[in-house]
Amino acid sequence: MATLKAPIDDIKYLINEFLETDELSNIPTFSEMTTDLTDAIFEQAGKVSETLLFPLNKAGDEQGCTYHDGVVTTPDGFKEAYQEMTASGWGNLTCDPKYGGQGLPHYIANAVDEMLISSNMSFTMYMGLTIGAYNAIEKFAHEDLKEKFLSNMVSGQWSGTMCLTEPQCGTDLGLIRTKAVPQSEGNYHLSGSKIFISAGEHNLTENIIHLVLARTPDAPSGIKGISLFLVPKFNVHDDGTLAELNGVFCSGIEHKMGINASSTCSIEFDNAKGFLVGELNKGMKAMFVMMNSARLHVGIQGLAIAQASYCSAKDYAKERLQGRALSGAKYPEQAADPLIVHPDIRRMLMTMKAYTEGARALSSWLSYKLDLSQHADNKQQRQEADELVSLLTPVFKSFLTDIGETVTSLGIQVYGGHGYIRENGMEQYLRDARISKIYEGANGIQALDLVGRKLPEQMGKYLRHFFHPISNFLEQYANDKPLTAYILPLQKSFSRLQQATLFIAQKGLSDPDEAATAASDYLNMFGLVALGYMWAKMAEQITYRKGEMSADFYDAKLKTGLFYMQRLLPQTGSLLSNILAGCNSTMSLKEEQF
Amino acid sequence: MATLKAPIDDIKYLINEFLETDELSNIPTFSEMTTDLTDAIFEQAGKVSETLLFPLNKAGDEQGCTYHDGVVTTPDGFKEAYQEMTASGWGNLTCDPKYGGQGLPHYIANAVDEMLISSNMSFTMYMGLTIGAYNAIEKFAHEDLKEKFLSNMVSGQWSGTMCLTEPQCGTDLGLIRTKAVPQSEGNYHLSGSKIFISAGEHNLTENIIHLVLARTPDAPSGIKGISLFLVPKFNVHDDGTLAELNGVFCSGIEHKMGINASSTCSIEFDNAKGFLVGELNKGMKAMFVMMNSARLHVGIQGLAIAQASYCSAKDYAKERLQGRALSGAKYPEQAADPLIVHPDIRRMLMTMKAYTEGARALSSWLSYKLDLSQHADNKQQRQEADELVSLLTPVFKSFLTDIGETVTSLGIQVYGGHGYIRENGMEQYLRDARISKIYEGANGIQALDLVGRKLPEQMGKYLRHFFHPISNFLEQYANDKPLTAYILPLQKSFSRLQQATLFIAQKGLSDPDEAATAASDYLNMFGLVALGYMWAKMAEQITYRKGEMSADFYDAKLKTGLFYMQRLLPQTGSLLSNILAGCNSTMSLKEEQF
Repeated sequence: MATLKAPIDDIKYLINEFLETDELSNIPTFSEMTTDLTDAIFEQAGKVSETLLFPLNKAGDEQGCTYHDGVVTTPDGFKEAYQEMTASGWGNLTCDPKYGGQGLPHYIANAVDEMLISSNMSFTMYMGLTIGAYNAIEKFAHEDLKEKFLSNMVSGQWSGTMCLTEPQCGTDLGLIRTKAVPQSEGNYHLSGSKIFISAGEHNLTENIIHLVLARTPDAPSGIKGISLFLVPKFNVHDDGTLAELNGVFCSGIEHKMGINASSTCSIEFDNAKGFLVGELNKGMKAMFVMMNSARLHVGIQGLAIAQASYCSAKDYAKERLQGRALSGAKYPEQAADPLIVHPDIRRMLMTMKAYTEGARALSSWLSYKLDLSQHADNKQQRQEADELVSLLTPVFKSFLTDIGETVTSLGIQVYGGHGYIRENGMEQYLRDARISKIYEGANGIQALDLVGRKLPEQMGKYLRHFFHPISNFLEQYANDKPLTAYILPLQKSFSRLQQATLFIAQKGLSDPDEAATAASDYLNMFGLVALGYMWAKMAEQITYRKGEMSADFYDAKLKTGLFYMQRLLPQTGSLLSNILAGCNSTMSLKEEQF
Repeated sequence: MATLKAPIDDIKYLINEFLETDELSNIPTFSEMTTDLTDAIFEQAGKVSETLLFPLNKAGDEQGCTYHDGVVTTPDGFKEAYQEMTASGWGNLTCDPKYGGQGLPHYIANAVDEMLISSNMSFTMYMGLTIGAYNAIEKFAHEDLKEKFLSNMVSGQWSGTMCLTEPQCGTDLGLIRTKAVPQSEGNYHLSGSKIFISAGEHNLTENIIHLVLARTPDAPSGIKGISLFLVPKFNVHDDGTLAELNGVFCSGIEHKMGINASSTCSIEFDNAKGFLVGELNKGMKAMFVMMNSARLHVGIQGLAIAQASYCSAKDYAKERLQGRALSGAKYPEQAADPLIVHPDIRRMLMTMKAYTEGARALSSWLSYKLDLSQHADNKQQRQEADELVSLLTPVFKSFLTDIGETVTSLGIQVYGGHGYIRENGMEQYLRDARISKIYEGANGIQALDLVGRKLPEQMGKYLRHFFHPISNFLEQYANDKPLTAYILPLQKSFSRLQQATLFIAQKGLSDPDEAATAASDYLNMFGLVALGYMWAKMAEQITYRKGEMSADFYDAKLKTGLFYMQRLLPQTGSLLSNILAGCNSTMSLKEEQF
């Protein structure tokens, strides 16, 4: 059976030692974030993950959500757990205290989120969607709407959704057909069909606040005619109490590969009362606020499921007796040695560990940059951080969800035949992780966002926020003997990334197909280098400024980082080779030749 | 919804043009294999795949097998289809005509198998296991047993199994505990528990013939004390009619990630009457005959499921309208262009196509070598072919099943959110394909077999059967202008493979952990080069000796081969880099540091 133990030590190390959070210590709420307090938060989050959510994970997958006549019922135990989780405030860590949130920095909240998702990805979808909707409302909606809706969302009494996809349009939102007809009172009546709506209907909360993309009757065609609307399931009186049911109906739920306990709904809007959020025809702008927050969240899903799988795989590899070490029996008193003595098992475990811990470091680091983008003292610092987060968001979403699939598949492999059996829980991780490469912008779309939008932005300005610090770091430690094994491989891969960047910048100007063909490989190089940078920074810090973790902990970090440099980072070589080959062989077949 | 069309053209091309089968034209049965006849076989196999088996695939996955009180029921329609398939002889293509088989060469039969598996992998397991058992009995059992059992297995009236795994042992068969106690009449009574027995119990046939690994009371410990026994579910009278139920009981079936319509059984043997197959304590030898045949079959499963996924993905990419081509609308009269105009979609489709067609070429080529190993005129030719097949079997099993996972995951991605929905069938392919990396020796075990057994065999003699022809081919075309784009990349990757081979041979001698750490990466390099060799050979043949396929067909082959050379084969670079890094970073953590 799968086991779960929250990676508290690694999180404490990252937050207390790896991140240098002094820049934000002037912010009142943040200055309260003493190590004692954050350690207590992490311990508690680990505890609820292990004891409250994880026990519901396997059963939730087996039972799934059920649908009957518009009503969606979540698996047994979900409702009680949801009440307990929201009552304890786990659903509103980053929300504004003005609405009842806890105003915690992202670098704390995201570490908590990883633990919660690890233990039950489906469950956390209901809380995660609410935060996405909260963010968009908080940033774009009129004060009246905020007053009316946000407190109950922050408390967890009401949940939120993002209603984007329609049967005829997923990625291409310009094809949206849902109509919003203006009414004399200033609101709108929405009609249309949405599909794939996570948490679109369920029995966890008394109301559901849908954020819906739609077009008004005389809106321009394409994405320039799309607006965002707030459409509650139940209308709400001015005093905040619930009124009659709105014209919102769940017409069915999907049967999926995974995240079976997360309801994925078809929602019909039939003259449903809605309120404009943000400006007319500027819906995509507001939508991207939801999406960017959601994309970071989805990247963390990749990391979290990888962690869950690694945790079980390493435990199994220590317990399961099979075969003998090649160098002679390690446990001659037992019938066989444990799996972990075998080099090929170690290759898998080390791959899982190096990706997961590298991804966690990137997650902490990027989350802190997000905090800086919102709270740093001076504007330039905020803007720089914002641009860096903007650059790295597609990389984070795509690369970490790729890691999610890679690691969970390795987790199955470590278990052998037992990994394929549902009861043991390992195959659920792969099934659950697989969606994260698809939703919130499929990974190919993330790559196009990186190459087509983020790279060219202000002649490479965003890019320089990432490349300059790496260059400086590499220069500073170029002749540093103890760090050679980290610096040289990073230098090599970083040069490849620079070369690929130049190739794309030059070729992409004359032929957009060149840039688009290279995009996914380029994003993967980017991700590999980003994690390489994290590992090198950790190695540097541990080598010169050890903190309070155990000697074994630091030793394992250095060795795992070395494995990353030697056995994962070199993939940049073949990726560069792919990119330099150009787009011809990819694009030259006629459609009928497929 | 998933669509399926058997790749008849590609198969005809491989069999009629790519393979040069003159060497076997003296064999009586084989000389009848005119193009007209084989084309007719392929057309017919395509038809039953598309119209009989494929319609049962999705429903079979949803319904699964059910278990009640020792009885296993396969999904609706399976029994009728099984009767139709076996009555038409699809289950005994390679079996000896002496027992009612059709005596077809493997290169024909395996092409047929690919089509059948594509359409319904679970269904074909029942037929495939029977052939595995047939092979071992035919090769090792006493004439009396053959007389008594083989005809009914060949006709499909009875099916077969391989009973190896026990709860405490999967890979490490030395830990087997099932007991076989000799009886005065010369037979044995078997008692013990086996798990993960595919087709171990079902309602398709009137009897099931189990091949069971067990140990006699005074057998040596470990794998040297293991013998192979034939244990029928129902005992059989001398006249071939069924007698009483034997001491064989199915105590349950597994709930798995995929292949839900294939029963995976726990089987209890309780003083079950069994017969020794082959020599006492030489069970592993006979077992390897089953395993090698099964490993090729499993490699073909990887190919087949990749083909199924590719077939649906390309159709969907041509139909689904989403976004516009970067170079300007291709279908301005439609609301959007089809997915296939997008470079990142093409990257995925080309990857799927290049892997799948390369794997199919390798499958045909290796199957023909298998025929040569059994039927070539002179002994040396047979032995050489046998050693080559022996060398490539682990590569084929592991690399093609890796391709199965890679391609089916891409298939989901091409479908986007719709790929995650069970109804559409794409996610089933990944779930079904995933087992093929695990059973019949997990892929890591295949890598150890390659590096630990096959490479050192007779000082690299087996290896030379593969390396010499590649060297000769590369030398012959070294300065061939039209083939440069194929020869140079193959040359580069082949050099890397040679370098890795030398590294492993040298380092492995002093430290077995070095060879074992490198094994999986080495096998992947091997597989990449093997497919590269196939693609280069196809390019050479098409460039200089075109046959009767259409100009578009040859053009697509050359371009797909180019894509393979430019965008898949370069992975050998990072793999070499991994290998040369040695085993230190993989092996240096203490167990408690995981």
